[in-house]
Amino acid sequence: MERIKPRTLSGFMELLPAPQQQLERFLRVLRETYALYGFTPLDTPVVEDAAILLAKGGGETEKQIYRFQKGDADLALRFDLTVPLAKYVALHYGELSFPFRRYQIGKVYRGERAQRGRFREFYQADIDVIGDGKLDILCDAEIPSIICATFTALGLRRFRIRVNNRKLLTGFYEMQGLSDRAGDVMRTVDKLEKIGEEKTAVLLREDIGLTEEQTKSVLDFMALTRDSVGGAIPEGLRALAGRNETFDAGLSELEAVTRHLAAFGVPEENFAVDLTIARGLDYYTGTVYETTLLDHPEFGSVCSGGRYDNLAGYYIDKPLPGVGISIGLTRLFYALSEQNLLTDEAVTAPADVLVLPMTENLAPAIELATALRRAGLRTQLYTEQKKFKAKLSYADKLKIPFCALLGEDEIAQGVCALKDMETGEQKLLKADEAASAIREKIDAKNAAPLIKEET
Amino acid sequence: MERIKPRTLSGFMELLPAPQQQLERFLRVLRETYALYGFTPLDTPVVEDAAILLAKGGGETEKQIYRFQKGDADLALRFDLTVPLAKYVALHYGELSFPFRRYQIGKVYRGERAQRGRFREFYQADIDVIGDGKLDILCDAEIPSIICATFTALGLRRFRIRVNNRKLLTGFYEMQGLSDRAGDVMRTVDKLEKIGEEKTAVLLREDIGLTEEQTKSVLDFMALTRDSVGGAIPEGLRALAGRNETFDAGLSELEAVTRHLAAFGVPEENFAVDLTIARGLDYYTGTVYETTLLDHPEFGSVCSGGRYDNLAGYYIDKPLPGVGISIGLTRLFYALSEQNLLTDEAVTAPADVLVLPMTENLAPAIELATALRRAGLRTQLYTEQKKFKAKLSYADKLKIPFCALLGEDEIAQGVCALKDMETGEQKLLKADEAASAIREKIDAKNAAPLIKEET
Repeated sequence: MERIKPRTLSGFMELLPAPQQQLERFLRVLRETYALYGFTPLDTPVVEDAAILLAKGGGETEKQIYRFQKGDADLALRFDLTVPLAKYVALHYGELSFPFRRYQIGKVYRGERAQRGRFREFYQADIDVIGDGKLDILCDAEIPSIICATFTALGLRRFRIRVNNRKLLTGFYEMQGLSDRAGDVMRTVDKLEKIGEEKTAVLLREDIGLTEEQTKSVLDFMALTRDSVGGAIPEGLRALAGRNETFDAGLSELEAVTRHLAAFGVPEENFAVDLTIARGLDYYTGTVYETTLLDHPEFGSVCSGGRYDNLAGYYIDKPLPGVGISIGLTRLFYALSEQNLLTDEAVTAPADVLVLPMTENLAPAIELATALRRAGLRTQLYTEQKKFKAKLSYADKLKIPFCALLGEDEIAQGVCALKDMETGEQKLLKADEAASAIREKIDAKNAAPLIKEET
Repeated sequence: MERIKPRTLSGFMELLPAPQQQLERFLRVLRETYALYGFTPLDTPVVEDAAILLAKGGGETEKQIYRFQKGDADLALRFDLTVPLAKYVALHYGELSFPFRRYQIGKVYRGERAQRGRFREFYQADIDVIGDGKLDILCDAEIPSIICATFTALGLRRFRIRVNNRKLLTGFYEMQGLSDRAGDVMRTVDKLEKIGEEKTAVLLREDIGLTEEQTKSVLDFMALTRDSVGGAIPEGLRALAGRNETFDAGLSELEAVTRHLAAFGVPEENFAVDLTIARGLDYYTGTVYETTLLDHPEFGSVCSGGRYDNLAGYYIDKPLPGVGISIGLTRLFYALSEQNLLTDEAVTAPADVLVLPMTENLAPAIELATALRRAGLRTQLYTEQKKFKAKLSYADKLKIPFCALLGEDEIAQGVCALKDMETGEQKLLKADEAASAIREKIDAKNAAPLIKEET
């Protein structure tokens, strides 16, 4: 037979079983945490009408999109979960209740140049709250609570949710007479943390043409939240109030977002007001969020989002304001793996226990497997005719935590020999006792955080 | 702004939130049941190299596949989960332990003519056990147990797993001197249940050219398992042993598959030996399975599969025998919905409880929401400035089972007014008492079977 060399496309993540189990745990944590906040799961097609996905059109999106014909149809793979959400809400507007809260965890596709850590197929995990006509600022205030609950459930403590409001920036630049160059200034200020004040000042003056005074004002403004932690709003920021309506609106929104941190269960050290955060320039209109891992700033923002005025203007004549966040799950998972930051304490084996029959008559081993499954344990019945040593080595390789051995003696006594593969300890136990012993140990193992933190 | 009419492509399922919750429950049941049997989850790319997906080539697959170019790459969307599994096992052969047991639940794509109940994007839910060189027949014997556990977990009792062995058929046709026409005969016999014995006899004689005697033999053979239920092998089938090696091998395998039904927890009434089952002609080589809903034979087989000799011959020079089954989840879900067979007892709302603040100070309501979430309840904080009636009507429309109302009086007393939206009953409860009351009711609701059965 002529053979084809098997391969997986570059930029498409395909994991071995153990890391896949770790990714599944991530997915489970995200699904459960998002659900706790009253978001309903959605599942939209991976393939959509290209004209619909590209309604906004333009730029990088159009270049990166996977687009193709099938018969007369002009199709494309979704490149994010926001455009499909906009289509969904516009299409089903009459059947939804607002505020509409949905989460979606799904694969999206971008034909980027393949390089380390960049994926062409990757999971995004999004939540959005969509209002019909208006949406209370309390929705914005709840978002940090969701981010915090998510990362805490993943095992992290050393992360910071950084929050800003675009209206503060817009208002400030208006006050400075910089409205026409606000976009350029924001793009430059975005580099502040990376390149420092001095170099930023040079760029602001030389590239964007700010005066010495304007440059100083911008940098002084940004410095108001330098190193700030917690929900307190700097006095210097409040001092700017009363001169520009947009600025004042932003300040009042920011106050609403920071006011209830404690009630929302967000520790002060996981939160910061940060005036340098701007996010995408043409989409967000109010609150914006970034989240960084304090020990891994090189990952960039691992969870970002913000408030927008109108979700679905390309499809429907209704103002649909919303607020949402997105986690680039595949990329985060890859970065954590690369840095060896995933714990391996939780069970990554396909089973919690391997039942090893050692007699001709298989019925007792099958019955034991059935009993363990009914007790909710992931149980594999070892079926192959191999030497005892080979069977144990199979369990070892897969890191199956327990083996339940069943020979003539055990069967006669109505027990199994339960072997803890970590300690080597072996005990004669009845099926229900074995089930409890296994449950206790694997529950403890699976309670381990998913992500390691340096101490 | 110029608007584009939103639409979802025909043949692509996109559900409203409540039915999506039902589908999510299906997915959860499948994931959990498959995991209980020691299968590890896999996730392979939706997009693969077209040459790899089409290694086997030919026929319907090639016509239906979504294939496209991106740059120099010739790409395609996967049309099943078996070919990606073959690629995966061949590619990662050295890193896997055998028997390799995996489940995969994922979307696959076939550009079929769109029609009612036919989908172009649909979920398949597959499990397979792959051996390296050989694979014990006990793996085949375990499959009905998995099917049974899955459908039972979905709430069904009235289903039947019908099992046959291709070697029995091959051997029998050899004995009849019909080897050269075995394929045609099997395709005709496949219609037996639908068109009856008489019409089948006519087709066998006139279309395939069987003699009167051969026709009678074939129909007598098939009749051996007519109306048979349970694991018993008909005497008439045993009586044919000793004359053909292939037949005898099939009989011995079938005996191994039926021997341990009870130990595997499969009730006799959910099982039948059925000689008319053949499945795909060029793939399965031993045991074959179909599963029918007794009250809905029109659904056809809802879970099918079998034993094959070599999973990945197109990619690797290793014999990799396997056995597996597949559930066409999207189609099954659609058929059940259409027939109004999905129960609506379980909670399909985005939240278990809606917290309604009724005071200026929002902190107590936020704290209550945080406490309920920490108790594991899916909690939505209602944030919009609306009349009380509109808030309750929001909960009603979404079928959120409970509202927790917080006015000045409740706050002063340290309680909330928990309103059961089904009964209208309202009680003053502390947060932890409210959590217990909600938990008790929603656990009872969610324990309802997913699928209704006529009685």
